[in-house]
Amino acid sequence: MTLSTQTKGVYAIAPTPFLPDGALDETSVGRVTEFYAEAGVDGITILGIMGEAQKLEPEESLEIVRRVIASAGGLPIVVGVSAPGFAAMRRLAQQAMSEGAAGVMIAPPAAMRTDDQIAGYFSQAVAAVGEDVPFVLQDHPQVTTVQMAPKVVRRIIEENPSCVMLKHEDWPGLEKITALRNWQGEGSMRPISILCGNGALFLDFEMRRGADGAMTGYAFPEMLIDVVRHSAAGDVDAAHDIFDAHLPLLRYEQQPVVGLAIRKHVLQRRGVIAHETLRRPGAGLSSAARAEIDYLLRRVARSDRRAAL
Amino acid sequence: MTLSTQTKGVYAIAPTPFLPDGALDETSVGRVTEFYAEAGVDGITILGIMGEAQKLEPEESLEIVRRVIASAGGLPIVVGVSAPGFAAMRRLAQQAMSEGAAGVMIAPPAAMRTDDQIAGYFSQAVAAVGEDVPFVLQDHPQVTTVQMAPKVVRRIIEENPSCVMLKHEDWPGLEKITALRNWQGEGSMRPISILCGNGALFLDFEMRRGADGAMTGYAFPEMLIDVVRHSAAGDVDAAHDIFDAHLPLLRYEQQPVVGLAIRKHVLQRRGVIAHETLRRPGAGLSSAARAEIDYLLRRVARSDRRAAL
Amino acid sequence: MTLSTQTKGVYAIAPTPFLPDGALDETSVGRVTEFYAEAGVDGITILGIMGEAQKLEPEESLEIVRRVIASAGGLPIVVGVSAPGFAAMRRLAQQAMSEGAAGVMIAPPAAMRTDDQIAGYFSQAVAAVGEDVPFVLQDHPQVTTVQMAPKVVRRIIEENPSCVMLKHEDWPGLEKITALRNWQGEGSMRPISILCGNGALFLDFEMRRGADGAMTGYAFPEMLIDVVRHSAAGDVDAAHDIFDAHLPLLRYEQQPVVGLAIRKHVLQRRGVIAHETLRRPGAGLSSAARAEIDYLLRRVARSDRRAAL
Amino acid sequence: MTLSTQTKGVYAIAPTPFLPDGALDETSVGRVTEFYAEAGVDGITILGIMGEAQKLEPEESLEIVRRVIASAGGLPIVVGVSAPGFAAMRRLAQQAMSEGAAGVMIAPPAAMRTDDQIAGYFSQAVAAVGEDVPFVLQDHPQVTTVQMAPKVVRRIIEENPSCVMLKHEDWPGLEKITALRNWQGEGSMRPISILCGNGALFLDFEMRRGADGAMTGYAFPEMLIDVVRHSAAGDVDAAHDIFDAHLPLLRYEQQPVVGLAIRKHVLQRRGVIAHETLRRPGAGLSSAARAEIDYLLRRVARSDRRAAL
Repeated sequence: MTLSTQTKGVYAIAPTPFLPDGALDETSVGRVTEFYAEAGVDGITILGIMGEAQKLEPEESLEIVRRVIASAGGLPIVVGVSAPGFAAMRRLAQQAMSEGAAGVMIAPPAAMRTDDQIAGYFSQAVAAVGEDVPFVLQDHPQVTTVQMAPKVVRRIIEENPSCVMLKHEDWPGLEKITALRNWQGEGSMRPISILCGNGALFLDFEMRRGADGAMTGYAFPEMLIDVVRHSAAGDVDAAHDIFDAHLPLLRYEQQPVVGLAIRKHVLQRRGVIAHETLRRPGAGLSSAARAEIDYLLRRVARSDRRAAL
Repeated sequence: MTLSTQTKGVYAIAPTPFLPDGALDETSVGRVTEFYAEAGVDGITILGIMGEAQKLEPEESLEIVRRVIASAGGLPIVVGVSAPGFAAMRRLAQQAMSEGAAGVMIAPPAAMRTDDQIAGYFSQAVAAVGEDVPFVLQDHPQVTTVQMAPKVVRRIIEENPSCVMLKHEDWPGLEKITALRNWQGEGSMRPISILCGNGALFLDFEMRRGADGAMTGYAFPEMLIDVVRHSAAGDVDAAHDIFDAHLPLLRYEQQPVVGLAIRKHVLQRRGVIAHETLRRPGAGLSSAARAEIDYLLRRVARSDRRAAL
Repeated sequence: MTLSTQTKGVYAIAPTPFLPDGALDETSVGRVTEFYAEAGVDGITILGIMGEAQKLEPEESLEIVRRVIASAGGLPIVVGVSAPGFAAMRRLAQQAMSEGAAGVMIAPPAAMRTDDQIAGYFSQAVAAVGEDVPFVLQDHPQVTTVQMAPKVVRRIIEENPSCVMLKHEDWPGLEKITALRNWQGEGSMRPISILCGNGALFLDFEMRRGADGAMTGYAFPEMLIDVVRHSAAGDVDAAHDIFDAHLPLLRYEQQPVVGLAIRKHVLQRRGVIAHETLRRPGAGLSSAARAEIDYLLRRVARSDRRAAL
Repeated sequence: MTLSTQTKGVYAIAPTPFLPDGALDETSVGRVTEFYAEAGVDGITILGIMGEAQKLEPEESLEIVRRVIASAGGLPIVVGVSAPGFAAMRRLAQQAMSEGAAGVMIAPPAAMRTDDQIAGYFSQAVAAVGEDVPFVLQDHPQVTTVQMAPKVVRRIIEENPSCVMLKHEDWPGLEKITALRNWQGEGSMRPISILCGNGALFLDFEMRRGADGAMTGYAFPEMLIDVVRHSAAGDVDAAHDIFDAHLPLLRYEQQPVVGLAIRKHVLQRRGVIAHETLRRPGAGLSSAARAEIDYLLRRVARSDRRAAL
């Protein structure tokens, strides 16, 4: 089961669970995978920025790949392979594919500035991971500081047939989706899957602009699934209704620096992971923050019982 | 009427209205001022980042100061005086105060990094504008890239008696408010007014953490006033209710790059300014974006009739 | 006398002299201009980054333009007009040209990232200053953080006929000069003047790669003139000999943060300006640094008597 | 043999040699180590930024540690262990020390801004690598973007007894050396070794300000040794004479982006490494650049025969 330009739906960005001492929580790796599968996601993405991938050792990364694929019941798994050097990228990509991953995800390094630098980087990356490996182009300038004009995204797509999906998390990015879909419509760009990130803060409108779904880690993937389904069915108001009900919490989870701690806390509350621990260096939550999350959960639960923990 | 450490409530960040050709729209300057006064704000802040201050010529800035003060019916006016050099900062500050401004607002330049650099900069700035001029310390790392630890904020407050207010827009910043209020409570920092910015995206919880109000430019200042009043009255749920009703639109207005265009569009729809024009260089809105704003306004209007335009 | 694509030689980047209290030192403005003219430069550039332009008020900038033109004895004067907004850029450009400037210099603002953003910015800037005003494209990524690929430089040149010169201070930039000259040679880019900046740290080789001269502010413009003349005459070794004799001091003057203070100190030692004062905020020199400059001057003077102060 | 606060002299920053296909050139690893030992350096630093450490896989890093220690004839070896996560840092540090390394070197990650963030990071790093492991504090803001005020350097030294050395490559940094040595002199900071980096561009004056030597990778370590010895012997002029003779080449090697390619090219010309290959992504040299290096070598050789290749 590989990733394709036809991929739609919700791909959960999975956190990496740790024990209180910072060791990998292998049991929770399986549990979080099963949770997503039961929630009805269409796939899972691991070892991304929110997966604390840069804090892992290579053996741990590989162990996570194996355990997630083993527990996913056949769901397609996308593996983040961004790395400062192509040697590490190649190795993880090849290991992941041979373990059964559906594809890999690549973000450009921070130093890339000009259009040619960015496009050139992806050509080199594709040569490194292999031209037969489907890859997701991650466009996330808030974190990478790399700004890709729509035509650079198109150029990467055109120059690399193995690029099957855009993980869209430029912000603001609604016009970027529209630009790409317009090019597709007029035939000046081949079709591609677009899944949206950025904590889903604009998912309601991203779907209306032509996105195929979400690839993000909000602690209630069920809501993301609802929004995508309602949108795909043309029931715009219903999509906004469920989205708006969660927005106060979703916005709270989107805070820079502490966002991942909040997400892990909610997942721990939901019983999905055993501990909310972030591997060091990483921020923890104050008791005030925990109380605020409680309050938000109770408010969300008024219209979505799944948030009644 | 000057700014003080006791200042509370909502200070609207006013946009600068332009004619379609980019000239200053002097008529709308008065109208937008009257609009805020009628809406019930406690003060107005002009010539901030959202006021496109960096695109104005000095004479225009002074003209805006005069017109806003003339139309404000006695409301306190805070004038942003951040500038690359102290000469321009001093001149605008002294002109503004002699015209009747209540105080000035200063953000650090982007190059400041270490604690000493930041604190040293504010000492120099205070020497430039005058030690008798009340000033607002603007803490806005998302834009300035300058990160001030809570203890640096405290140091600036302690070293500069004319610092009467923190414009808090660190993000995330809830713990920063708590830290400052704790120091105040235990007597290790003198009391100070804290008004929150960042488009009000966290105003609901910022009030609970001890903020005195908001200083931001959301196109419905009425909502900000409601949240601040309900919070001050201890009616937490009511504060969240009205906040959540607006959150989908408020979040939409918070988009980087196009946020100001959205805000001006809504204010133009409300009849507050004649044109939604941004002075160049500045982004405009697509028809899709306008339709999305319409849709959001209609949804907000279901629970807040003031959004029925 | 206007700037053209044929301009060659040395344009001195003039510092702005201040009195010890930070006021503009109007007398020294004239003196520094006469000094450059007597040294034999081909033109003078004012109000650049090294001219502390961002610390000046508009009236001061205009006063400097007038005084320099009045004292320059007909030498072409280039005026830096980079500004956060086009209103200020237009005004200064039009005032400067009407006072008799030879052209203006424009650097892109820091936010520009993609090729299209950069090229689009220059189209807007040209519309603002006027299509009939010759301009220098300043390519200085170390300061602006804007990286222009050679093809973006070419695009700006092709799209804007009023672009007559590149102020080249990309670092490293030798290959960029070669790329542009190659395009010129094969006819895929119109000819343009290239003067080099970056404190002249690579002027020896920049001339060999095809530069037309230097536009920088090293405190001994006589040396820059020698290098350019020897290079133009094909006497490569002589160019390197005089360059290498100054390199220890030139390198010392190139230090970030304190570089301008060093340059002003040497110019004050040379009797060109009355005070080495930088307008605040700005760094001063320690006594150790002054002693080091003395030592370097004495060493340079062994092979170039002009450095015997 | 471990690193201490008394360490003096020249530590060569060793490049990592690769075969033309990008594989580790294990033979050259030994040869480059022997070259440095024969040149008379006091130690070798490996796996730093100039060692392309971020492009290596963990097994390769460990292999390099082993081979260098085996070939170094007892010279102390410092191993760069900077990493995005503490897990990888701990592992490499412990492996390196158990293989016989003299100490490790740690630079802060780019996100660190405030004084407390930076100091806190080093406390966490020391906990990770072990309090008994001597470490070098790398202060290199040009690359890391982290600016440490002198008092933050002092704080890290005071809070972490295992900090034995500062790798000084702030730029400009002469006043920083003076400030630290003054504190040491007055007893407000314990003594520490200071070795200077930044390609040695200011080594002549850094020694006069109180540095203990150099830790950098200029392709002629013999010159660095001469400068340090002459300086230590009080023969200031002799130090400058040999430094100035190399400065044109040293400056050429200091170019951003292509600097390492130049250094590897010279080392290959010297027979120290078999290939000048950089692992991808990495820049190569044009034929013009090679000719310029040839020219510079010939000029240096006029006063230093060791440069006659």
